Amino acid sequence: MLVVMQQGATDEQIQNVIDRLVSLGFTVHRSTGVLHTVLGGVGPADEMDPADFEVMEGVKECHRIVSPYKLASRYFRPQGTLIKIGKVEIGGPHIVTMAGPCSVESRDQIEKVAEIVAAQGAQIMRGGAFKPRSSPYSFQGLGEEGLKLMRAAADRHGLLVVSEVMDHTQLPMLMTYADILQVGARNMQNFNLLREVGRTRKPVLLKRGNSATIEELLLAAEYIMSGGNYDVILCERGIRTFETYTRNTMDISAIPVVKKLSHLPIVGDPSHGTGRRDQVLPMARAAVAAGADGLIVEVHPDPDRAMSDGAQTLSPGQFTEMMQQVRAIAAAVGRTA
Amino acid sequence: MLVVMQQGATDEQIQNVIDRLVSLGFTVHRSTGVLHTVLGGVGPADEMDPADFEVMEGVKECHRIVSPYKLASRYFRPQGTLIKIGKVEIGGPHIVTMAGPCSVESRDQIEKVAEIVAAQGAQIMRGGAFKPRSSPYSFQGLGEEGLKLMRAAADRHGLLVVSEVMDHTQLPMLMTYADILQVGARNMQNFNLLREVGRTRKPVLLKRGNSATIEELLLAAEYIMSGGNYDVILCERGIRTFETYTRNTMDISAIPVVKKLSHLPIVGDPSHGTGRRDQVLPMARAAVAAGADGLIVEVHPDPDRAMSDGAQTLSPGQFTEMMQQVRAIAAAVGRTA
Amino acid sequence: MLVVMQQGATDEQIQNVIDRLVSLGFTVHRSTGVLHTVLGGVGPADEMDPADFEVMEGVKECHRIVSPYKLASRYFRPQGTLIKIGKVEIGGPHIVTMAGPCSVESRDQIEKVAEIVAAQGAQIMRGGAFKPRSSPYSFQGLGEEGLKLMRAAADRHGLLVVSEVMDHTQLPMLMTYADILQVGARNMQNFNLLREVGRTRKPVLLKRGNSATIEELLLAAEYIMSGGNYDVILCERGIRTFETYTRNTMDISAIPVVKKLSHLPIVGDPSHGTGRRDQVLPMARAAVAAGADGLIVEVHPDPDRAMSDGAQTLSPGQFTEMMQQVRAIAAAVGRTA
Amino acid sequence: MLVVMQQGATDEQIQNVIDRLVSLGFTVHRSTGVLHTVLGGVGPADEMDPADFEVMEGVKECHRIVSPYKLASRYFRPQGTLIKIGKVEIGGPHIVTMAGPCSVESRDQIEKVAEIVAAQGAQIMRGGAFKPRSSPYSFQGLGEEGLKLMRAAADRHGLLVVSEVMDHTQLPMLMTYADILQVGARNMQNFNLLREVGRTRKPVLLKRGNSATIEELLLAAEYIMSGGNYDVILCERGIRTFETYTRNTMDISAIPVVKKLSHLPIVGDPSHGTGRRDQVLPMARAAVAAGADGLIVEVHPDPDRAMSDGAQTLSPGQFTEMMQQVRAIAAAVGRTA
Repeated sequence: MLVVMQQGATDEQIQNVIDRLVSLGFTVHRSTGVLHTVLGGVGPADEMDPADFEVMEGVKECHRIVSPYKLASRYFRPQGTLIKIGKVEIGGPHIVTMAGPCSVESRDQIEKVAEIVAAQGAQIMRGGAFKPRSSPYSFQGLGEEGLKLMRAAADRHGLLVVSEVMDHTQLPMLMTYADILQVGARNMQNFNLLREVGRTRKPVLLKRGNSATIEELLLAAEYIMSGGNYDVILCERGIRTFETYTRNTMDISAIPVVKKLSHLPIVGDPSHGTGRRDQVLPMARAAVAAGADGLIVEVHPDPDRAMSDGAQTLSPGQFTEMMQQVRAIAAAVGRTA
Repeated sequence: MLVVMQQGATDEQIQNVIDRLVSLGFTVHRSTGVLHTVLGGVGPADEMDPADFEVMEGVKECHRIVSPYKLASRYFRPQGTLIKIGKVEIGGPHIVTMAGPCSVESRDQIEKVAEIVAAQGAQIMRGGAFKPRSSPYSFQGLGEEGLKLMRAAADRHGLLVVSEVMDHTQLPMLMTYADILQVGARNMQNFNLLREVGRTRKPVLLKRGNSATIEELLLAAEYIMSGGNYDVILCERGIRTFETYTRNTMDISAIPVVKKLSHLPIVGDPSHGTGRRDQVLPMARAAVAAGADGLIVEVHPDPDRAMSDGAQTLSPGQFTEMMQQVRAIAAAVGRTA
Repeated sequence: MLVVMQQGATDEQIQNVIDRLVSLGFTVHRSTGVLHTVLGGVGPADEMDPADFEVMEGVKECHRIVSPYKLASRYFRPQGTLIKIGKVEIGGPHIVTMAGPCSVESRDQIEKVAEIVAAQGAQIMRGGAFKPRSSPYSFQGLGEEGLKLMRAAADRHGLLVVSEVMDHTQLPMLMTYADILQVGARNMQNFNLLREVGRTRKPVLLKRGNSATIEELLLAAEYIMSGGNYDVILCERGIRTFETYTRNTMDISAIPVVKKLSHLPIVGDPSHGTGRRDQVLPMARAAVAAGADGLIVEVHPDPDRAMSDGAQTLSPGQFTEMMQQVRAIAAAVGRTA
Repeated sequence: MLVVMQQGATDEQIQNVIDRLVSLGFTVHRSTGVLHTVLGGVGPADEMDPADFEVMEGVKECHRIVSPYKLASRYFRPQGTLIKIGKVEIGGPHIVTMAGPCSVESRDQIEKVAEIVAAQGAQIMRGGAFKPRSSPYSFQGLGEEGLKLMRAAADRHGLLVVSEVMDHTQLPMLMTYADILQVGARNMQNFNLLREVGRTRKPVLLKRGNSATIEELLLAAEYIMSGGNYDVILCERGIRTFETYTRNTMDISAIPVVKKLSHLPIVGDPSHGTGRRDQVLPMARAAVAAGADGLIVEVHPDPDRAMSDGAQTLSPGQFTEMMQQVRAIAAAVGRTA
């Protein structure tokens, strides 16, 4: 903890800060400069909020110097994390594709999707069973029946299953049917849910909230890992900005930044990242070029008739084209897809 | 639904859009202009996503013309909504103050707060019992014991209680102790929770998500109201922008905009809105000047020793000063506080 | 300059940073902690960019501890700055109103506006002579003829004139006709222009850019002041966020934050801040309640026929109502208007 | 122009809107729905601001249906624009690299850079002669002497020159030394400057403002093109968001979106886009993968001693590595680099 005092801060103000730091268990070093006094506090209380000091009298600013995340930091595991689920490896040289519909709609639909995506080289099928929608009058998902249909279709085609757990009460059900538990963007800071998935030993796909910083994403991963579950896959799926042409702005730079700061694998979601199917292919290519360990995309046999998210969902033909392009980019960065 | 075709859209492309609109139950009017053909679809399917049409071939843009919210719109109840809880009225001429600590910490603490805020004219006590924090190593709240302590202290001082329900499993417990159910910013689009609070008949304090538009806030209110619970109080508590000096940017303009678009009452939260106790007073004044029906602020007997959110928490002296200032502003806009 | 080294940084990396700091004229203090080494550099080179150190090998982060602005900081002149122009004082207890059309359109129009705004207590007339518009096909302003008309109308009604200088070549002309030189939001970081207005001794109204932080606004003021012109009036006029209902999000909190960090007066511009005339009144009230030293608003005899910015322009009746409301709020905060 | 009336709008309100549209030269079609009346105005006045109608009594919302840009739209030139300067083609299958220092500092520096970048296949040298900096105390550039040095070095190595014109008074000088006129991000809406460069016949590199939408970027291009200069190269260089790890968030999706909406070539600037040299390579790869027609990057013989922007500047070795990687990605998308 570094506390920079204002110009002209009084001795009493400085002493108050020192006293508070000491009372919290810090050892304090004081440097007196021409303009500012700086207090460096070394101690155990990493979770202190710098804002608590910034509002003290005479304080100019305060910086935390110990990483708020440790288990998630690159330093903890410099060689990177490889997550193995059966024959699938996430975080290695092969770029993993997760593909499937926004929602499971019917046995026929999910079977068709499974066939299509498996044929093109996807290893994991995505699909939602619970779809609490922004309109209370819309389709809300098939629930457990949807999970059963997806599991069966995936098994027939040798695919793994990733599906979203909306809250901790759904965890037992998702544990039964899914190979990877998805924590959605809106739940990135649902700490109850993070704690519960951290107690399982299922891999977790953690999506970045649409107004979350990269640091907050890593702190959410830390939350899960602190429960003992180290198999966290991060996902960049777009942040909210002033731009309106795309639904979100996909922050491609989050991919190399995460690779620098953390050892965890990261995948890109160009479907949610753009909200427009006509932008999914170039953004899938960009994500892989920037170093993504995988992609997660929405695919439907007939996107114009999808019950949710049709605008950002690829047709089988588009998905095939995407896979060809992604393989070319993967080769250009020394990987496979 | 208005669909604007691109310049040069073919007859086939236009016909595809018309066919799709008709298949969804719309009656379609076609206007052929010099540059663009415009299709106006009138029909029942208000929840259509304009993006579904925007990705069709030949379509330039698409606009939804029926409000996505109805129950929450000003048109539904032009005179405004007055929520009555015992002797307290929210949405009327008296500006209601909700005040209390971020977290309930002890019997002594909550008793002191209750005494202070009641003495200064607050009618409702706020306080959190469940504090899933961004760091997994921090204080997580007293749970049900905290609710009991808060209820008892509130009763001794004639205060109502507002407290956050973190997920739907906590609802029975919160129903027992609280007069108003708070849905936090991170849960603004937790549709499971919205549906469940919509089935109760307890007033709900719905906080705007930090990257939610005003329309999305109203749609979340609609979600609750569609369950039959019309007693929704909206809350502006800051949005995320590029500015870093304040934790969030409190969007004061959301207050008069909500008053124009909706009949629901709206309160301002300058504690979360700024994240800095030294900015709470001016922003409380601004919120009331802009037309807020109430305020919700954090108060603690000793903010520097608060177990959470101390930086944005007022001392008793600051709270007293705030109430004096707010009363003066209220009088200037023809209200009381 | 505080440089925090990464966990595990090598001695060579640490020495490289020390050497670089020393070569730039810093005296360096080294603190070795359990996890991190921290280097504190005290020296003359305040304008160093922390990013230059953050990309060095082994560096975790870097913080600048000397304010990047000095002349603009509150510490430089704790009592605040009062700008006097004739009988008008900006920054004192009286809240100054600047009002007038977006563009000067005709002798008749500007005369009517001058009469209206003077009658309601405005002391300064605003109006644009150069209107380079976002569409190249729109009305571009009357140029010098417009300035002459505005000057004459202002003089007849005892008003001062504020008008925008679009680039440094217009400065001589603006010096002739205006009492206050406006630097627009798009020019907030036009350093050529800032330098030139800094060489004059005319008061400057400096508008915050729509994606500028408060620190950047103060640094732009510093730029002007470093030329010897200390009469800078800051203006909050809305920042760009994801919200689309309003054209910009008026950051009311910038007003009290600037009052804390700087001694310069600040005014609010609810016309540009919201882009909607139906939101100007509540936001004018909010700005004054939050501590603004003045307001700048657009007024036109017939806003629906204004040649630019009509949507955010008040009618004479609305302006009259605004002044009444603002006077009530001013009284509530112990000021006049 | 489509005007959607509110539910319950009166006949008088509807007639007022119709009258206003007709007075502006529109032909009006009226559609009366169950809930809303919609007025479709077809006419010449494309530059109308929808906000002017949105503030009228009884109006719910208003949409403009004619593109605000025409010359810049893909429809105007479906095959795309190829800009030829000597032997260099921008917008064709070869991806063009522009590289050089932030500022020209000395004959020796610019000669070294020219040698390095030419050897690696760059065709255009970038470099600034005027550097009005955010701190008034920093290096401000060599001015015309810098342009002479850059021109000479470029000529020796067969490179073209791109350099920024800060305002219209510098145009004659830049016309003398540069092959491409750069309009910087802060000047993207400096309409005086846009008009003047539009009157020249030099190619223009137009950078997106850091809070500009894609539509606003295209409208700025339209402004230049309306003067007769069709050789506009767009540049994505990062937008301002809440993320702080990178200086800006490089909006990679702007590249494919611009390719869809417009015929103009677009290049990516990963130096400004990220502000960090350690993120330039992955983002250069991503830009090319997403379809960029070129790259512009900062290179210096000794970035740690660069007089400006060192943190985002590549060393010769890093630039060499970037070019190798970019060539691999280019091949993967069927192009050369």
